[in-house]
Amino acid sequence: MNATALADLSADDLATLLEEQRAAYEELKTRGLKLDLTRGKPSAQQLDLADDLLRLPTTTKDAYGVDVRNYGGLEGLRELREMFADLLWVEPDQVVAGGSSSLTIMRDCLFYLMLFGGVDSERPWGKEEKVRFVCPVPGYDRHFTLLESLGIEMVTVPMHDDGPDVDAVAALVADDPTIKGIWIVPTYANPSGSIVSQDVAARLAAMPTAAPDFKIFWDNAYALHHLTEDEAKSADILTLASAADHPHRPIMFASTSKITYAGAGVAFLAASTANIAWYLGHLGNGSIGPDKVNHLRHVEFFGSPQGVRDHMAKHREIIAPKFAEVDRVLTERLDGRGVATWNTPSGGYFVNLDVVPGTASRVVALAKEAGIALTPAGSSYPYKQDPDDTNIRLAPTMPPLAEVTAAMEAVATCVLLAAAEQASA
Amino acid sequence: MNATALADLSADDLATLLEEQRAAYEELKTRGLKLDLTRGKPSAQQLDLADDLLRLPTTTKDAYGVDVRNYGGLEGLRELREMFADLLWVEPDQVVAGGSSSLTIMRDCLFYLMLFGGVDSERPWGKEEKVRFVCPVPGYDRHFTLLESLGIEMVTVPMHDDGPDVDAVAALVADDPTIKGIWIVPTYANPSGSIVSQDVAARLAAMPTAAPDFKIFWDNAYALHHLTEDEAKSADILTLASAADHPHRPIMFASTSKITYAGAGVAFLAASTANIAWYLGHLGNGSIGPDKVNHLRHVEFFGSPQGVRDHMAKHREIIAPKFAEVDRVLTERLDGRGVATWNTPSGGYFVNLDVVPGTASRVVALAKEAGIALTPAGSSYPYKQDPDDTNIRLAPTMPPLAEVTAAMEAVATCVLLAAAEQASA
Repeated sequence: MNATALADLSADDLATLLEEQRAAYEELKTRGLKLDLTRGKPSAQQLDLADDLLRLPTTTKDAYGVDVRNYGGLEGLRELREMFADLLWVEPDQVVAGGSSSLTIMRDCLFYLMLFGGVDSERPWGKEEKVRFVCPVPGYDRHFTLLESLGIEMVTVPMHDDGPDVDAVAALVADDPTIKGIWIVPTYANPSGSIVSQDVAARLAAMPTAAPDFKIFWDNAYALHHLTEDEAKSADILTLASAADHPHRPIMFASTSKITYAGAGVAFLAASTANIAWYLGHLGNGSIGPDKVNHLRHVEFFGSPQGVRDHMAKHREIIAPKFAEVDRVLTERLDGRGVATWNTPSGGYFVNLDVVPGTASRVVALAKEAGIALTPAGSSYPYKQDPDDTNIRLAPTMPPLAEVTAAMEAVATCVLLAAAEQASA
Repeated sequence: MNATALADLSADDLATLLEEQRAAYEELKTRGLKLDLTRGKPSAQQLDLADDLLRLPTTTKDAYGVDVRNYGGLEGLRELREMFADLLWVEPDQVVAGGSSSLTIMRDCLFYLMLFGGVDSERPWGKEEKVRFVCPVPGYDRHFTLLESLGIEMVTVPMHDDGPDVDAVAALVADDPTIKGIWIVPTYANPSGSIVSQDVAARLAAMPTAAPDFKIFWDNAYALHHLTEDEAKSADILTLASAADHPHRPIMFASTSKITYAGAGVAFLAASTANIAWYLGHLGNGSIGPDKVNHLRHVEFFGSPQGVRDHMAKHREIIAPKFAEVDRVLTERLDGRGVATWNTPSGGYFVNLDVVPGTASRVVALAKEAGIALTPAGSSYPYKQDPDDTNIRLAPTMPPLAEVTAAMEAVATCVLLAAAEQASA
């Protein structure tokens, strides 16, 4: 491609481009498309990979003789905790296997902190005058929604390729005791694809914080979700924090939602043994134990930690071509135009597309009118406020490949049209 | 039996009895028993009844075309909600199907009330100076533990055969706005076996309350768990409350924990449509949907509401003889002695045994030393404080029948020995 940047076009050429894109967009609208790139959901083809689960488990007792059908075992099935301890590089005693949603486990931790406080809290967070969280942006909208629902104020810092801007984070937390935590997706972040480096993780683990009970919510949702053979290894935040004498600072979360079934997997929490006791203590007031049948189902399905890794390779075969297609179409249509930048993630579920500042909302609106559902502009920012109106999150895993192509061609048209409109205004 | 009441025995005869029971108890200890009547857990034989679940579902889509493996459907699978709406005498839109634990759903409702308030609250309960709950006693220890953990004070009223002492409840709630709720097991109550009558339910639904957001937590854990052919029909608290113009007062809870698998069933919430919207609104901030695969698994397993009822008849065949055995041994050993009263429940999971006031702790301690685990005395009271030290909860469902016999023979010896000790003191 040798496309000219819009900024370098003559007025006539810009007018021509605008007309071309308007015509392309009108043609697009006639097609009656109904495509959806909104959410990071696995496709039916990916879910099919786990359908042996439907005929498991073949027994009702685990290797330790526990009848998985009955009550009990608050911390989850030992064999499954051992398996995922291996995958998450922690000890089995530091892992809890729970229900089907890590989001719910994270919510529960926030609820416990608000209502009861943490192991190192002076009082419940709900009794503080103000509680604030550092939020790297762009980030995961559901994290922000939860914080907002609890009245926890959000302070943003930029997300870089190697993780949150750690200088900015360290400066914020050093003197302000109202800042109680930070929420990070450390591996293949939603939506930037960033991977928190060992250095950044070490600084987050070690930095002085004014709040004695500062927490790192380490949402390792995509720990094993590689898109290339260059498999990122997540920084070992628990060991780093322990070495820095802040063992109770991080709480790690993970799940098999995007490994087996999105709605019927198993979620995990990993933390210091004191944090585990704290979590189980509160959990035990309102639970007699998780679904251990589903735990055993997963143990049998995977067989071993390597079984999980092998399974992820099958996902990669299905979804890597979709990510490649997003990049191909964007490159073909937009490269050199100076109207967009995007990442080529090496894992995770999203492509982060930054369009001409001030046009993201317009792009999403144009796409919607043409039948392509995109996540609302601003969704990756607290309070849904993208200050530059530039960020769009693309989720290409769910639609079949042909629909990804059609949707991305349409998105490219919308991006160009919105940019040309703005340049002509 | 023509046993003489202890109170009517001569000093000599009492001394003889005491010696006999001491000898019997010493003999008991030599047997090395290891028996457990502590918790209301189903036996392996009961769990076996549901083992077809291990090979279900046979498909991955529900009748409405929903792929149950993926995210979504916060309110639960439509077909399962329809099935249990029928069984709970409510509309499907008034039912949410959730995870595996109704205790967790109840806890979540309390958390939402504390952190956010209810649909009719002036402020979050956590912002009130004081929050209190009415607790019929004896009652379910896990209810009390949850309330205590949240700092909600408990005020007791007696539980009668037809439900809580409704005059006492009405008097408490009429003028005191700090009293925000009552927690009731309406059908075959834990542990008394009481069944809330239509009249009592109607008064609870209609009584004036000083708190505008008074809630009835209607924990219908044993709605379908009949021990006789005389099947109790739970009072329809939602309709009664709606008719009394307090539609948002009751929230009903139920589960299949003691229908299919104790650890891997499905839990339900039923309430007014405004309460359902309130519940789902808060739930949706921390969940992308429940385990719909398990929902479909249950839909296929039962087939219909009648399938659930038929399944419960199989449970009855297994556990009714155990309850009969508890009554037989207690009658044979203690009838006429004036040392104990107990109920013969027509459903549920417990027998409520009241021993000589002041001896319940002693009985439990004696039993423990002889290898029989009983629920700690006082467990069925808030703060574990039975003011009369008289109440013991027996749970006979889990052990095989022969063990129930052995355990109850031992319990009878302990009850008699403790009573003889006290009478001789």
